[in-house]
Amino acid sequence: MRKILIIGAGKSTAVLVKYFQDKSISENLHVTIGDISISNALNLAENHPNCNGIVLDVFDISSREKAIQDADIVVSMLPARFHIEVAKDCVRFEKNLVTASYVSSEMLALDSEVREKGLIFMNEIGVDPGIDHMSAMQVIDRIRKKGGKIILFESFTGGLVAPESDTNLWNYKFTWNPRNVVIAGQGSAAEFLQEGTYKYIPYHKLFRRTEFLEVEGYGRFEAYANRNSLKYQSIYGLNNILTLYRGTIRRVGFSKAWNIFVQLGMTADDYVLKNSESMSYRDFTNSFLAYSPTDSVELKLRHYLKIDQDDSIWDKLLELDIFNPDKKVGIPEATPAQILQKILMDTWTLDPHDKDMIVMYHKFGYELLGERKQIDVTMASIGEDQKYTAMAKTVGLPVAMATLRILNKEITTIGVQIPIHEEIYAPILKELEDYGIIFKEITGEYLGYNPDGARG
Amino acid sequence: MRKILIIGAGKSTAVLVKYFQDKSISENLHVTIGDISISNALNLAENHPNCNGIVLDVFDISSREKAIQDADIVVSMLPARFHIEVAKDCVRFEKNLVTASYVSSEMLALDSEVREKGLIFMNEIGVDPGIDHMSAMQVIDRIRKKGGKIILFESFTGGLVAPESDTNLWNYKFTWNPRNVVIAGQGSAAEFLQEGTYKYIPYHKLFRRTEFLEVEGYGRFEAYANRNSLKYQSIYGLNNILTLYRGTIRRVGFSKAWNIFVQLGMTADDYVLKNSESMSYRDFTNSFLAYSPTDSVELKLRHYLKIDQDDSIWDKLLELDIFNPDKKVGIPEATPAQILQKILMDTWTLDPHDKDMIVMYHKFGYELLGERKQIDVTMASIGEDQKYTAMAKTVGLPVAMATLRILNKEITTIGVQIPIHEEIYAPILKELEDYGIIFKEITGEYLGYNPDGARG
Repeated sequence: MRKILIIGAGKSTAVLVKYFQDKSISENLHVTIGDISISNALNLAENHPNCNGIVLDVFDISSREKAIQDADIVVSMLPARFHIEVAKDCVRFEKNLVTASYVSSEMLALDSEVREKGLIFMNEIGVDPGIDHMSAMQVIDRIRKKGGKIILFESFTGGLVAPESDTNLWNYKFTWNPRNVVIAGQGSAAEFLQEGTYKYIPYHKLFRRTEFLEVEGYGRFEAYANRNSLKYQSIYGLNNILTLYRGTIRRVGFSKAWNIFVQLGMTADDYVLKNSESMSYRDFTNSFLAYSPTDSVELKLRHYLKIDQDDSIWDKLLELDIFNPDKKVGIPEATPAQILQKILMDTWTLDPHDKDMIVMYHKFGYELLGERKQIDVTMASIGEDQKYTAMAKTVGLPVAMATLRILNKEITTIGVQIPIHEEIYAPILKELEDYGIIFKEITGEYLGYNPDGARG
Repeated sequence: MRKILIIGAGKSTAVLVKYFQDKSISENLHVTIGDISISNALNLAENHPNCNGIVLDVFDISSREKAIQDADIVVSMLPARFHIEVAKDCVRFEKNLVTASYVSSEMLALDSEVREKGLIFMNEIGVDPGIDHMSAMQVIDRIRKKGGKIILFESFTGGLVAPESDTNLWNYKFTWNPRNVVIAGQGSAAEFLQEGTYKYIPYHKLFRRTEFLEVEGYGRFEAYANRNSLKYQSIYGLNNILTLYRGTIRRVGFSKAWNIFVQLGMTADDYVLKNSESMSYRDFTNSFLAYSPTDSVELKLRHYLKIDQDDSIWDKLLELDIFNPDKKVGIPEATPAQILQKILMDTWTLDPHDKDMIVMYHKFGYELLGERKQIDVTMASIGEDQKYTAMAKTVGLPVAMATLRILNKEITTIGVQIPIHEEIYAPILKELEDYGIIFKEITGEYLGYNPDGARG
């Protein structure tokens, strides 16, 4: 039997494990799930005959080494910062490695050793990064093969709540790490290319410069710019492109309301509030508003940020109960972002039967035979339940498919890789269709940079 | 003769040197000015018989040690980060030390050694910090001696252009380090106390929450909050105070216009703009605005930040020529803040005959015999020319006065000090009056926190 070691039994591992279990007989596979918590590992193993769970603390060198030595291939589903120790063992014991994480500089530094030993270290093969790379490169390569020149590439991904579970005014629930949502976009300005010009949006304007998108059957969305849209420019071979933009998808109206928190300063994570533990939600809100001997916290906020009483933003704020004088923060030495996260989790946590959704949207503009054209490609995937979520599917399936293809020597390019080559993306995108992960394509006239999304 | 060593012959040293020269016979003083540039040192020495200039590189250990060993007292006018080497030598050779800079943690760490050797290291005795400490503590101590309880302390200082040299629409020119003006307020939120509640203003709102001030004879000013108003709360003994706020003074209208740069993202200093060297001022402005196939840079900016055509902000922007397509940035790998600084220096640099001005404003609220009262204390000082500036006077004179009093054993409290004790501030504030640095006092009814500055 071919032995697969999966390290890390977190949220996105369930679908990955199930894929291997389902193919364990036909493909002659044995899966070992290693996690610091044995119950997490056993929970995913589900007593399947070709699957077992073990305790694996990635910082316990001897048990880590032993597990890796025993395997034919290693899948690391750990948080990104823990991959490197696993990767170094994989070099030493000459094992191929698959991760869904961004290639870190430490990982990239292993490239020559990995090549010398004829190994494949496949990274960024989850959903974002992962399916985004593959689905984009498939269209880009196709346009190029025809002799077309890419002049625009915009790419958007979002993890959202499924329409059937979309029950709050923000049309949003936490389907992944809440902290990343609260501090999203912080740091230096978002940088991108628009019609040949580099553009920069500071954090405090990020949620006011959104683009609109429509996905057939799923309605309208908006997107705000990611920090660095230019990251894959040379990797994708888009050095002379005019417009290059990557963004995060939300339902329409989210960003305008989220901007209220940004403007108040509630998303800051670089200082702690005095007496945070004993604060009420109302005290927290009032911390960002000037003192007044007469006006209420509500009135001060409305006046400060010019929110009309009948503005839908106002109902969104009320839904989160940010003016409640009785609910306590209860976190000592908390940053504004930590407190805001707690407040949001009261309202934005998935109910047991809620489902999540992944939405992806790529726009490609190109010139072919003197004509400008545009291709819009969209994908939406809905989770089955809170174990087999859309996130777990879209992360776990491509990881699993790549792992099996490396085992089967169908993927053969050695080195520290990301899935931008046809050898990898073509069969995996094809197989993903069997699991309902299907991209729809619309070809139309070239619209160029078009923040309002108007057609014609 | 008593030998004074002054290290650093920068902008604020001229008045300091002149004070000692003028008293060199009556007080039996010899002054040595050490600077890395001999011409700077000689320029200030002015061939005065009791004054000489020497080359002193603070990183050349032997020459630094020799100069310090030769002196009876040392004044360090170096940038704050260079004081510590001088301070360590002063401990070793048992010399008293005076600086106008904030007490660094390294400086504070010397306190026990300084005390053991019976030395005085007087710091923060320039203008801000310095005259602000002294003038505030004089009023605070007086109120306390009467049995009053301080409930409010607001303190504002600004370095501005003198009214007779105030020739631009911003009513502002650079009278000190331009870089500090461009990046002022950045970092975590400004924190202060208002009527018993901690309040926080994020950077992107700092210039929209100003307070107004009026100084008799000098007109109206505004102030934005400093980063940490609570820094001196315990040092001043104000632990139960209700309102504690420190701010920076500008002419009315400055902050509202400056906010345009903040909103655009032009003050950011944490990333570099692509192709900055070849950009025009217009390109720079356009970097922060979305692409439009039809609208001008001017129209996009007005629309984005909702500036009416007849708004006085607009004239301020035009005055700085930020839409000029011919003026080039010319700085490679420049941050937005570096480019903005260059643009501002074109317009805000002092002309040879321009004069500067220092303005200070303290408000004290207190309870005495069941009554609440308020004292407002103001000071304005105008420079004589570009050598004897208001900044050089207000920094150099208290440094000089403290140095002479330490030499004369009139200041005797040992340790790493700041001028908050009567022994220090009373005689120095009295002597400063001889040089036109005079505080005017108005006593009135208690207004409490009052951002509009309305009386009654």
